[in-house]
Amino acid sequence: MTDIAAIRAAAARLAPVAVRTPLLESPFLDEIAGRRVLVKAECLQRTGSFKFRGAWSALTALPDDARARGVLAYSSGNHAQGIACAAQMLGVPAVIVMPSDAPALKLANTAFYGAEVVTYDRPGGESREAIGEALCAARGLTLVRPYDEPMVIAGQGTVGLELAAQAREAGVTGADVFVCCGGGGLSAGVALALEAEAPGLRMRPVEPEGFDDMARSLDGGARVANPALSGSICDAILTPSPGEITFPILQRLAGPGVAVSDDEALRAMALAMLRLKITPEPGGAAALAAALRPGMGESPVIAVVTGGNADPAMLIRALETL
Amino acid sequence: MTDIAAIRAAAARLAPVAVRTPLLESPFLDEIAGRRVLVKAECLQRTGSFKFRGAWSALTALPDDARARGVLAYSSGNHAQGIACAAQMLGVPAVIVMPSDAPALKLANTAFYGAEVVTYDRPGGESREAIGEALCAARGLTLVRPYDEPMVIAGQGTVGLELAAQAREAGVTGADVFVCCGGGGLSAGVALALEAEAPGLRMRPVEPEGFDDMARSLDGGARVANPALSGSICDAILTPSPGEITFPILQRLAGPGVAVSDDEALRAMALAMLRLKITPEPGGAAALAAALRPGMGESPVIAVVTGGNADPAMLIRALETL
Repeated sequence: MTDIAAIRAAAARLAPVAVRTPLLESPFLDEIAGRRVLVKAECLQRTGSFKFRGAWSALTALPDDARARGVLAYSSGNHAQGIACAAQMLGVPAVIVMPSDAPALKLANTAFYGAEVVTYDRPGGESREAIGEALCAARGLTLVRPYDEPMVIAGQGTVGLELAAQAREAGVTGADVFVCCGGGGLSAGVALALEAEAPGLRMRPVEPEGFDDMARSLDGGARVANPALSGSICDAILTPSPGEITFPILQRLAGPGVAVSDDEALRAMALAMLRLKITPEPGGAAALAAALRPGMGESPVIAVVTGGNADPAMLIRALETL
Repeated sequence: MTDIAAIRAAAARLAPVAVRTPLLESPFLDEIAGRRVLVKAECLQRTGSFKFRGAWSALTALPDDARARGVLAYSSGNHAQGIACAAQMLGVPAVIVMPSDAPALKLANTAFYGAEVVTYDRPGGESREAIGEALCAARGLTLVRPYDEPMVIAGQGTVGLELAAQAREAGVTGADVFVCCGGGGLSAGVALALEAEAPGLRMRPVEPEGFDDMARSLDGGARVANPALSGSICDAILTPSPGEITFPILQRLAGPGVAVSDDEALRAMALAMLRLKITPEPGGAAALAAALRPGMGESPVIAVVTGGNADPAMLIRALETL
């Protein structure tokens, strides 16, 4: 069970190692949106995404014997790097199960952080769960899920704690807070933190068009799945369906979801580079894309830029839209 | 006269408005340099460079009657945007004297912040000083120099105050601190702050190859000029010669200067985008380029990324080096 006490405890464990990412503004973005836009630049976090927070929170919450045996994660993306980096810093053995056809850069980055990378034949239909379960059983590893994991949600919630304090310092007490949303771990953690610390701020999940399972699930009152798992450049937030643990939290606390197009995400990436001097990845820019839509009201809006692990070709593609 | 008390006073005036820019790290950069690299991401400051700090410090130090009459600055770059933005936030009239052949984007950005932009015919040999002096005399405007101005140096010194605290939190008590250097306002302010708050950190100015007037002046013990004022992509830090006020401070406190090539600056820009998720401009990446040189020792090194106002074509050019 994740609650505000768990988030505060995670914040204390993260304080010595996490970046307190800044809340940035630019009048050029305000002009586009027609209102004040504030951006939590979480792409500046260790490993280039908020995932480090949840990983550190989960690993530091393990009993000593489980830490000594090690952890396992399935991921080809930011969760893999978050777990690998946190594990390396803590001296915890980490096994990351990745598809053998994952981008070479992602395989190399994960291995760079000292994790043992085990690949599986995704196109050939090999089951990562079967491989992972066998490894966990044989070595006593603890599986760390990317979002349906209370201590991961608690870690992600520390983004919301910081945001509550930073918004107050910026004089913002009422605003929508757009958060890029995959399985909902960050969204749920942020929503819980804002409920306790900044009740005038409302979390709203942002997803890619065609992959807005969370928005549709919130609308319909029950978890529904996406029709596919590829087809948007926002790969970091393409997940099968809302999490079992995250969804009830979001049903209680989230505002309506928003879906953005790939073109909107690319333009938001470009504007973030030009005006805020940060480099989001496409899925990390989705919330900013939603916040930049004009004619959506006059109260301030906050966007969390959740990750920055784009490859150079994608950054160039975004810059060429300017 | 700028001293640590003036820097602390400037910090108090800046606290409600300036970004406390983070000190970032990446193990990928540590591997390149062969030692721990820490980066103060001052490109995330308001207006995209540290110049906002000095501008705010200078404007808030003016007597009320001078503030009401307004300020004037000569600049086609980051100082112009810093003054214009600070003036707009404070309700101070601002006149910026810029060459009519300055890039359209820079003219537009400065005007966007509400400043009155007065252009002069640079190729035709028109004197900006003559225009500026006439405007100051006619309207009672106060000239705010970009670096040879005690209250500007005090504002830039707040970068050093933050750095001293952040380095301590990161466990770094002895390190070279590379700072991108033009006239030396930031370098002098940082050096004064470190002297008082982190005596184990030594400020070292970094300049473009062929334009290392500060390094040569420090070497020779007297101010010497650059042979030209163009010819490097690091335009933000091309200045005629060390400042009259800044040079004696740096003679007393600075370590040896370093000069970096345009290619090194471009590669540092690209690595900053890829690994730190920030977008420096060429002159803002010079210090990072120096810090990334391998084989320069084992103690940690700190670099201040001073600005991020690159145009998209320059960012693409840097990314294409990867």
